[in-house]
This record gives sequence, structure tokens and C-alpha cells, in this order.
Amino acid sequence: MTANSPQKIILDCDPGHDDAIAMLLAWGNPDLDLLAVTTVAGNQTLEKVTKNALALARVGNITGIPFAAGADRPLVAPQIIPEEIHGDSGLDGPQLPAADATQDPRHAVNLIADIIRDNEPGAVTIVPTGALTNIALFARMYPELVERVGGVTLMGGAHHAGNMTASAEFNILADPEAAKIVFGAGWPVTMVGLDVTHKVLATPERMAQLAEVGTDVAAFIAELVEFFGAAYMKERHYPGPPMHDPLAVAAVADPQVVRTILAPIDVETQGELTRGATVVDLRRTWGSQAGGQDPTALGTADDSDFDAHTSASTAGAAEAGTGAVGAADSLRTRVAVDVDADRFWTLLIDALQRIGNTGF
Amino acid sequence: MTANSPQKIILDCDPGHDDAIAMLLAWGNPDLDLLAVTTVAGNQTLEKVTKNALALARVGNITGIPFAAGADRPLVAPQIIPEEIHGDSGLDGPQLPAADATQDPRHAVNLIADIIRDNEPGAVTIVPTGALTNIALFARMYPELVERVGGVTLMGGAHHAGNMTASAEFNILADPEAAKIVFGAGWPVTMVGLDVTHKVLATPERMAQLAEVGTDVAAFIAELVEFFGAAYMKERHYPGPPMHDPLAVAAVADPQVVRTILAPIDVETQGELTRGATVVDLRRTWGSQAGGQDPTALGTADDSDFDAHTSASTAGAAEAGTGAVGAADSLRTRVAVDVDADRFWTLLIDALQRIGNTGF
Amino acid sequence: MTANSPQKIILDCDPGHDDAIAMLLAWGNPDLDLLAVTTVAGNQTLEKVTKNALALARVGNITGIPFAAGADRPLVAPQIIPEEIHGDSGLDGPQLPAADATQDPRHAVNLIADIIRDNEPGAVTIVPTGALTNIALFARMYPELVERVGGVTLMGGAHHAGNMTASAEFNILADPEAAKIVFGAGWPVTMVGLDVTHKVLATPERMAQLAEVGTDVAAFIAELVEFFGAAYMKERHYPGPPMHDPLAVAAVADPQVVRTILAPIDVETQGELTRGATVVDLRRTWGSQAGGQDPTALGTADDSDFDAHTSASTAGAAEAGTGAVGAADSLRTRVAVDVDADRFWTLLIDALQRIGNTGF
Amino acid sequence: MTANSPQKIILDCDPGHDDAIAMLLAWGNPDLDLLAVTTVAGNQTLEKVTKNALALARVGNITGIPFAAGADRPLVAPQIIPEEIHGDSGLDGPQLPAADATQDPRHAVNLIADIIRDNEPGAVTIVPTGALTNIALFARMYPELVERVGGVTLMGGAHHAGNMTASAEFNILADPEAAKIVFGAGWPVTMVGLDVTHKVLATPERMAQLAEVGTDVAAFIAELVEFFGAAYMKERHYPGPPMHDPLAVAAVADPQVVRTILAPIDVETQGELTRGATVVDLRRTWGSQAGGQDPTALGTADDSDFDAHTSASTAGAAEAGTGAVGAADSLRTRVAVDVDADRFWTLLIDALQRIGNTGF
Repeated sequence: MTANSPQKIILDCDPGHDDAIAMLLAWGNPDLDLLAVTTVAGNQTLEKVTKNALALARVGNITGIPFAAGADRPLVAPQIIPEEIHGDSGLDGPQLPAADATQDPRHAVNLIADIIRDNEPGAVTIVPTGALTNIALFARMYPELVERVGGVTLMGGAHHAGNMTASAEFNILADPEAAKIVFGAGWPVTMVGLDVTHKVLATPERMAQLAEVGTDVAAFIAELVEFFGAAYMKERHYPGPPMHDPLAVAAVADPQVVRTILAPIDVETQGELTRGATVVDLRRTWGSQAGGQDPTALGTADDSDFDAHTSASTAGAAEAGTGAVGAADSLRTRVAVDVDADRFWTLLIDALQRIGNTGF
Repeated sequence: MTANSPQKIILDCDPGHDDAIAMLLAWGNPDLDLLAVTTVAGNQTLEKVTKNALALARVGNITGIPFAAGADRPLVAPQIIPEEIHGDSGLDGPQLPAADATQDPRHAVNLIADIIRDNEPGAVTIVPTGALTNIALFARMYPELVERVGGVTLMGGAHHAGNMTASAEFNILADPEAAKIVFGAGWPVTMVGLDVTHKVLATPERMAQLAEVGTDVAAFIAELVEFFGAAYMKERHYPGPPMHDPLAVAAVADPQVVRTILAPIDVETQGELTRGATVVDLRRTWGSQAGGQDPTALGTADDSDFDAHTSASTAGAAEAGTGAVGAADSLRTRVAVDVDADRFWTLLIDALQRIGNTGF
Repeated sequence: MTANSPQKIILDCDPGHDDAIAMLLAWGNPDLDLLAVTTVAGNQTLEKVTKNALALARVGNITGIPFAAGADRPLVAPQIIPEEIHGDSGLDGPQLPAADATQDPRHAVNLIADIIRDNEPGAVTIVPTGALTNIALFARMYPELVERVGGVTLMGGAHHAGNMTASAEFNILADPEAAKIVFGAGWPVTMVGLDVTHKVLATPERMAQLAEVGTDVAAFIAELVEFFGAAYMKERHYPGPPMHDPLAVAAVADPQVVRTILAPIDVETQGELTRGATVVDLRRTWGSQAGGQDPTALGTADDSDFDAHTSASTAGAAEAGTGAVGAADSLRTRVAVDVDADRFWTLLIDALQRIGNTGF
Repeated sequence: MTANSPQKIILDCDPGHDDAIAMLLAWGNPDLDLLAVTTVAGNQTLEKVTKNALALARVGNITGIPFAAGADRPLVAPQIIPEEIHGDSGLDGPQLPAADATQDPRHAVNLIADIIRDNEPGAVTIVPTGALTNIALFARMYPELVERVGGVTLMGGAHHAGNMTASAEFNILADPEAAKIVFGAGWPVTMVGLDVTHKVLATPERMAQLAEVGTDVAAFIAELVEFFGAAYMKERHYPGPPMHDPLAVAAVADPQVVRTILAPIDVETQGELTRGATVVDLRRTWGSQAGGQDPTALGTADDSDFDAHTSASTAGAAEAGTGAVGAADSLRTRVAVDVDADRFWTLLIDALQRIGNTGF
């Protein structure tokens, strides 16, 4: 990715603490060209997350792009609001400034359609970091535009272990039918799920590095992390909260941040125990002849694995995997199986440095 | 496990190539006291697997214990016969001798009940290596005996990836309702699933070691592996077939063979994509304070991980896990997350040496 | 049905108020030969319903037949105890005598197997009036005996409207997997469900007729009806409680009591709204050429319909239906679509007169 | 309904033979003001049904209203095209004229939004006669407009017996998730399903009456019926095809055509046997005190019932039902339980007479 051709993206989000960081990363990163921010009910009601998005525009001095509101509830599923994670405002913790941006009058879905129509085929990647309701509505309302979308890189899902249930992650469980539509729509989808986001934690050490940026926006993020981290640190004994949503943005900004493998992905919408699970089919051939993928690739566990054993023995498998799934030429779904956490944090710090003080 | 107190087991199986090896291991291993063999429809019809079991008694010179037939079909699910794996006889490959053992007239479920009733509470472990129909019927017919069973160590299930579908393993998919009953019955259950059995492969190197035993029974096993391995080697490019069923027996004979962690396990019986999946809840706390389990433990991929990184960093977690899931005192389900393949092969070779030539 | 050849039956029940009346009807009716009473958890725990069954033996002076206990919980479903209907004892209302019969040591399922084995093929009809757990266990434990059973005439299910949910009736919802096994086992099944039982109500007029019998047993039934009717009369404004279970017994004693039609019947075990529903396929051809069944037959609503319009216009259809479902020669499931309530009450009163005073 | 205030409707359809008749009825009936025709994939692809709709405008001389295309596939379900019923064109049989109307450039969902926004609250009733995809998208895209919709009177669903499966009707099964959204959206819904449409058949007698209209449009309808009826008459032995879709239009034009009762209605989207079933909860109180509804009302079977027994004994119940479901003040879903077929045919003939010869 060179500075000459930043990747155009639409950020579809429900801020939400980690959505907020994702938005700032998307704005500050020089390899991304943020075209619009759309909102969807999820971490809080549509009204609240839209208000939050507009306030964040003020925090990050994000100007010249439209902000539009979309779906106020899931397609079929009953609405779930995880107030215990994001608080009553959806962005509890720091004091939010009054918004001075104004909301675009268009429905988020129609705004996305306009942008996709107005850009070259393949030019725009959609980055959803909330429930996939808007993106599913877009796919079903404007099927003729689906092939013009460059790809969908989403935060959501989990192979190894869910967070809301044993197998389901929140964004997918919040609207399983929408997720099923999005994974099956035919465009390239990259799933950045808990398998990688749980490896990028805002530990005290990481936050100390980030504090050195020394700006008001960096301080704002520190306050977000403090609130957002509390539940993770108290109930789950994580050393810091996962950077879920920013990681999806980072994966577009710098594809080296996550390692992905091609695999069929579908969403369970039925199921007594598994509704909302992303079903990643990892029954790949492996071994020498076929150059298939290592079925255990998703198990690689932490940075040291990634640096040492994994990069040696399975990076090759992953590479082979990309080209070798010959029977699956039409396969367009990828799952992120490992992550370079250092690279993520470098990206985030760089973006904050570029944003600088905004005096919000 | 000392020779003074071999563990009493009942083997409930559907031979089946790997069941056959499991039976010979159960008979030859000095730390196991095989009390009975019961059969269930699965790899082939009840009639065929029962005939095979009796023939195997002749092969291994297994005498003095009852062989009884059980359920001829799954509880609710339609019957699936995987003829492409085990052939028309259920044990295609080697020439089978005529059986000279006779079948016990009791129903397998009633035989199990008699044995459990006649032994001390906790003395007998049931080792199912097929569909769980018999064991589920036993639990529902004789609920008063459930607490007298020492444990159920079963071959079946998968967390990481299924074999019949993306998430379901054959033995569980063959009778999901029975599996749900067995995992939830209240007795201690250890799930020895594809996560570990796919790491114990009868590669040419392993088979060369086994050939050195030099007996007719070892040669018989080699023929089984040759037939059984064909599908795995041709279609899936495995370097050898997995030792599914014998691994469950080995896990009882020598608990060091597999590493297990406590985790809630349930079976999805509904689900469009996930019916028959074993849902292992790995949302454990981790980190230093709580001494919780590493949620990524199941990902550790191969022997080198087990010997190096894993034994250092997660063996402790596993140990802690055992004792530390304080909130889950009643949790009695364990999932095998890693395996010492060398240890398994040593056990099998030793068992064959003890059985010797039988002149079947 | 002549007195020369009373129909042999096994009553499998969970008394339960209407089960109690069913048992007395089965004992007093001269066209039935009650071979055994087996119990299953349902209206109350197995322990309580078994105790109730033995007490009822004393009430009705039912002697010379075995009483055996079966399953203490459903196969897969969680247990539901409808205490609001049948009270803490499962038979609240009248004072129960101490039992002097003793419980057969055999498991109900094994007792049923012994009886079926000892009688001529086709000679015995099983009449379940509770959850179908025992009967399902019997079908799966002893598949070789299924074809020796004359038929299964059960109280349970509903086409038009359920009682526990919009589509599910209690006995089926209590163990949907067992019900699915029973409807699909291959034996002849007659479903006597809410479509007919809700048309046979113990109204004050009916109870006044019954009181004329003047025995202690009739008075006992009046007390049962009084308790059992309360919930129906208060919450649902029924003029009296439905005679669910006795109607299944009556349908065997006198096939003229209900009108049945052949139709495929299966049980929904999945379903968000419909779990436990009996799915009766009424998509029959109709009209003159094919002589098919009237798809609206199940809708005929009350006694006056049965006597007037229905008997004229659809009795023919039902008759034709019996013979005309040519493509469905193997179809062995029947659903009761209409009832002759007068005939039922005559049967019950006659049975009570034959039982007389027992001085319990 | 007086000529002074025709009811404004939007017809959302997938012509389709019966849709075609519905459209002509909607245009010719003086008590209806047809504001727009929108199309949805269903009986054939979106492209074909839209082309058919425009051709029908020419047949009926339907001018001055927009025609717009909507969803080209169901929300989540795989697409089903019932070519065996409606043929390759979706309207096989008569020769279709070239269309001279042009398609509105707006998406059907956005057109519906514009119309609802531009009319008084409550003024417009939506009449869907195909899969409910457009209407569901509208409800989720524009939730703020839902309360401005006067009602949704749809052809679809079945209580007594489905047509595609034992319990599911085609329009609902074609997109169960959309149907669930529509029934649950909060606006008044009237379900005109198979329970009534199967009682309005285009028998030779009815077609003879219709032929007396003597116009080219009436002749066109006769050709439609001839093709559409073939499958029903050959395979199901119906004396003529059901007038599914026109009945929904008729129910808006003249509420006396169908008798409806208030009842909770939901759609099963899971279910092994029942996916796509409309679950109508008919567990109503009945009897004198509560003035509740007769739970057997839906069973009333044919015209003679409606004229005789039903009108006497259950018309009152239905009336009471309307007002009496006191505990269900918020209940806004109604199911059609009976129909006055004569009244329907009078309406249709009248509409055709008003349309006259169009010389298409």
C-alpha cells in the first residue's frame, strides 16, 4: 500500500468504544481514504451510536465526509444492547464534545449505494465493525452493486471461541441473518474475528506506549480503554481489552497485520447452542502433495508462535493455501488466523500522531 | 496405573477398522481389565459389526468375556453407514477368521447394567468408540446406575474441525441426540476427538515400527491400516490414517497420553450447519491472577508444540485449569486438547507384543 | 368388538387425573383385557405417578396384573412438570387410599417386551396416555418386537391448536424426540389428540349423569374432575375439563367413538415456535375422481356437525380415504378427527357400573 | 366501502397467474384506488414478473400509476421458482401483448416509502400477493413509516394445511424471514391464506359465469385459468384452481368477503418440518362468560357451513372475538377463517365489466 493510492473505505459502525478507535485509525492512517461513516444499531440504539459518531468526528476533526444513519434494529433477531460493556451512552467514559458535523439525510444503505455507484468497480472496501444489518440490506436492495464492491473486511465472528455464547461473537449474534447474507453475497469477505482480536490487547504496556503520543486525542482513547477494559479485566482477567474493531480497519490499511486463509464461511442461524456462530470449514487437505492448508493453522496462539514456529512452518501452508484450493476457485471468504500485534500498535500510534491535537 | 490395579473397562464399539485396533489394545494392555465388548450400529449395520467383533475375539484370542449386541440404529437421526470408509463388511481388507466366541443373549444395554450393578461404584469406565446410542439408552433406562459408572471416555467429537461436516465428527453426527444425553448425564466424560486423533497418524514410519513386532496380529493390523488409510491418503492427503478409536482406549490405559482440560461440552442437535457438533465452551478466564485456562490451548498444533512451547507455557495452565475452575465444581466434562503420539505408539506396540501370535 | 375377544392392551400412563379415569375405564370395560400398567414421568415425577397408579389399583380393585415403572425423565428434552394442572401429588383432589398392590421389579420397558414376546403377533395394543419415553425406549431397545405390536393408540398431539404452545400438546412437548420415534417406528399409530379430546368435556350435565352410577368409584372420579376442571374452567372458560386420556382407551374399546383418517404424521423436534408439534399432512386430493379425503375434515367442529353435516358429507370421504390413499400403502398413522361424545360417556358409565363399589 | 372513498392500495406482486387476476380486480374495482404496482421475485425471476406486470398494464389498460421492481431474491432463504405452476414466463398460457408502460426508476421499496410518506397516516393499505421480501425490506429500511401504513392484507400462509409442505404455503416458504418481519412489524396484518383461498375455486361453473362478461380481458383471464388450473386439476383433483391472490384484493375491496378473527400469528423460520409455517395461535377461551372465540372456527369447511351452522353459532363468536380479546389489546394480526365465495365472484365479474374491452 503506497501513499499514492490510499484504499477507499466506508466505515459502517456502532460506536462503541472500539468503534471509536477504529474510526480515528481509519481517519489518521495515510493508506486509507475514508469516504463515509455509516451507523447501525448495535452497541447501543441507532440514535445513540449516530450521536456518538458525530461527536467522534469533532474529536478527530473528521471533516468533509458524510455521516449517515442506517438500520435501527436487526433484520429478524430480537435486539440485544450490551449495556454492560459500552454503558448507557454506548461510549461511556470520556466526556464527549458536542457534535458540529451534521447527519447526511440519506439512509445509510442508500448512501453506500450512491458511493459504490459513483466509484470505479472494485475501488471501495466496506469495513463493518458492528452488526451487519446495513450491509445485508444493501446487498439485498442493490444486488446489481454487489460486484462493484471491492470487498468487505469485517470485525465479527469467531472460530475458536465466541464471547456471547460458546460459539457466537456479539456482532454476528446481534443479527445472524444479516451476517449470513453478507458472508454469502458473493463479494470478497475477510473475517477479522475473536481468533485474532483477542490477541491484540490494550495492556498497560501498550497504553504506556500510546500515551507517549501526548495529544488530546490519544488521551481520549486512553479514557475509552479504561472504561472498555474494566469489564474484560475484572470478569475475564484479560490484561487489557481487545482491539476488536480497529483491527479490521488495520487489516485493510496494512494486509500484513493479519494472516488470513481462504475457507468457506457460513453463519448458523438455526441451532439451539450455535445460533450466530461463524462456521469456518477448516477441513483442508494438508501435507506435501497437495500443498493444502494446515488445518491446525487457526490454532496458532500468540505472538511468539507467529514469530517463531508459525512463520516457519505454516506461513508456507498459508501461502500455498491461497493458491492451492483449486477446487474452490469461487471461494471468496477469508478468515484471519493470526496477527502481528506490534504492527497494529505501530499503525495506531502513527495515525494518532498524524491526527495530532484537535482541541476538541 | 500399576499392574496391581488394572482399570476395568467396557468397550462399546462398531468395528470398524480403528475399533478393531482399539479392541486389541484394550485386550493386550496390562493396565486395562476388559470386562465386556458391546456393539452398536455405526460403521456398519449391527449385524455386521457384531460379527466383526466376534471374529476379532478370534484374532486376538480374546476369551472369557461377554460380547453383546445393542442398538441397531440411532435414537432419532436417520442411519448413516459410511461404507466408503470401512467397506461392505465394515472391516474390509484382511481376511477375517470364523468366530468361535458366542454372543451373549443379553441386550448390550442390559449387560452394561448388570456389570455396573455387579461392580463397586466408580470401578468401571465405559469406553465408547462408536455412536453413543447404547450408552444413551443405558443412561435413560437405568438412571440409578449412572452415578456408579466411573466415567465415560469416548472417541468422538471435534472442536477445531469436524470430518463429516465443517463442525461435526462422525460418531456424534451418527446419533446427536444420544451424544447429547451422554455428555449431559452427569457422569465424568472425557472427549477424545479429532483435535487429538488427527495428530496420531499411522504413517509409513509408524507402521514400520509396528511391523517389527512380527506377529500375525500385527500383520493383521497392518492390513487394516492399509485399507483404512487409503481414503485418508488419497482424498485428504494425510500421510496415514488417524488412530481415532485406539486413542480413547489409550487415554484410559495411560492418562499421560492425552492432555485434557475441563470445559462445558454440549451437543448441537438442531442447527442447519452445526447439527452433531460438540460445542466446547472455551471462554475461560486466563492470565496470572485467576490461574484460569489458556483459551488458545486447544490450538496447540503438533508434537513439537507439545514438547516445547506448550509444555512450558500451557501445561501449567492446564494444570491450573483442573483445579481452578472454582465456579464450575460440578463440571465433569473434559476435552482432550493435546496428545503424546510417541507414548500412544509405545502402548500399542507393547500390547501387540503381549498378545503375541494367536494363530487365528 | 365382542365380549368373546376382548382387545389386549398395555396402559402406559402418568396418573394424572385423566390417566386415572383412563385406567378405571380400561379395567371396567368388557371389551378390553388390561394386561399391565406401566408408568412414565410426566404429569408428575416417576415416583409420584407410580405411587398414584398403585393407589388407583386399590380404588378400582385392579388385581392380577403387573404395575411397573419406566423412564424417570424425557429422552433429550428438559423435564416439565405441570404442577398447575395436576397438583403436587400429580393426583390432587380426592383422598388416595394406601396401595396394596406391589410394583413389578422389571423396568417398564422390559415388562412391555416380555408381554409382547409372550403374546401372539398383533395381539396387544399399547395405549400410552403420557409422554412417549417408555414406548420410544421399547422401540429402540427391542426393534425386533415392533412388528409384533398390534398398534399404538395414544393420547397426545394436536393438529388444530396445541395447549402448551400454539401448536404443541403437553404429552408430545414433554418428550418430542420420543414422540418422533413412536410415530415413525412402523407400527400402526392412532393419534387421539386435542382435536377430539377438546370435544369431550366433563360438563356439569355429563357429571350429573355419571353421579347416577352412585358408587364410591364414581364419586372418586367426580372429585378428580372437580380438581382437574378448575384450571380449565377458570383460565380457559371451558364448561368442563376435557377427557383426554380416557378417550384414547375408549377409542380402542369401541372404534366407533372416534373417526380417524389416514395421514402422514411426524413430530417437529426443532423449530423455534413449533417444537413438539404433531405435523399431520392433510394435503390430500379431494373431489370425485380420486375419492380422496376432504382436507377440511379435521375442521368439523362439534357434535352437531358430527351428527348432521359431517356424517353425511365427510363420513364418505373418510371411508374413501381409508381405502383410497393408494400411493400410501405403507402409511400406518391415523389421526382422530371427530368424536361421538355420547358414545364415550356411555362407555365410561358402563365401566363404572361394572366396577361397582370397591370399598377402597 | 362507498364509491366516495375508495381505499388506496399498493399491490406488491409477482405475476403469476393469480397475481394477474388480482391486478385486474384491483384496477377494475370501484372501491379500490390502486396507487402503484411493485414487483418481487417469486413465481418467476424479478425480470420476468416485472415484464409480466407491465404487459398486464397493457391488457387492463392500467395507466397513470407507477410500476417498480423490487427484490430479486429472498432475504436469507435460497430462491425457489415454481416453474411447474406458472411456466417458463411466469404467466404461461395466453399471448402477452408488448408492454407500453415504462418501469419507474425507483426501487420498489423506495417507491413504497415515497407513497406512504406522501399520503395521510393510515390511508394506504399494502396488498402483497407474493413473497414478502419487499415489504420486509421496507419495514426495516423505513421503520419510521411503519405506523403510517394503514394495514397489510396479504395472500399467504395457511393454518390447516400448507401446499409446499404439510404446513407451509408457497409465498411464506419462499421467504420465511421476510414473512416473520412482516407479521411482527406492528402494523395491522390480515392473513388471507389457503384456509380460505382453497374454498374459492375457478370451477367450470364459475368460469362459465365469467365468460358471460364477453370482453377480451375476460377471455384473457379464462386462458390464464386454463393454464393455471391444469396442475391443480390433474395432480390434486381440484375442480378448478384456487383464486389465491385476487382474494386478498377482494378482502380489501369488500371486508364482507372473508370472515377474520384476531389471533397471534408468527412464522416458523427454524423447524425441520415446519419452516415457513404461519403459526396461528388459536388457543382462545370460549364459552359464554368470556365471549371468547370459538377455537374451532377455522375448521368451518365450506359454503354451506358458512351459510348455515357457522353463521348461526360462530359468527357471534367471531364478532365477540373482535372486541373481546381484552388481554390482547395490542394484537393486530388477523387470520381469514371463512369466505363468501359468491361475493368474491360477483366482485370479480363486476370489475371486469367495468374494465370492458381494452383491445390490447
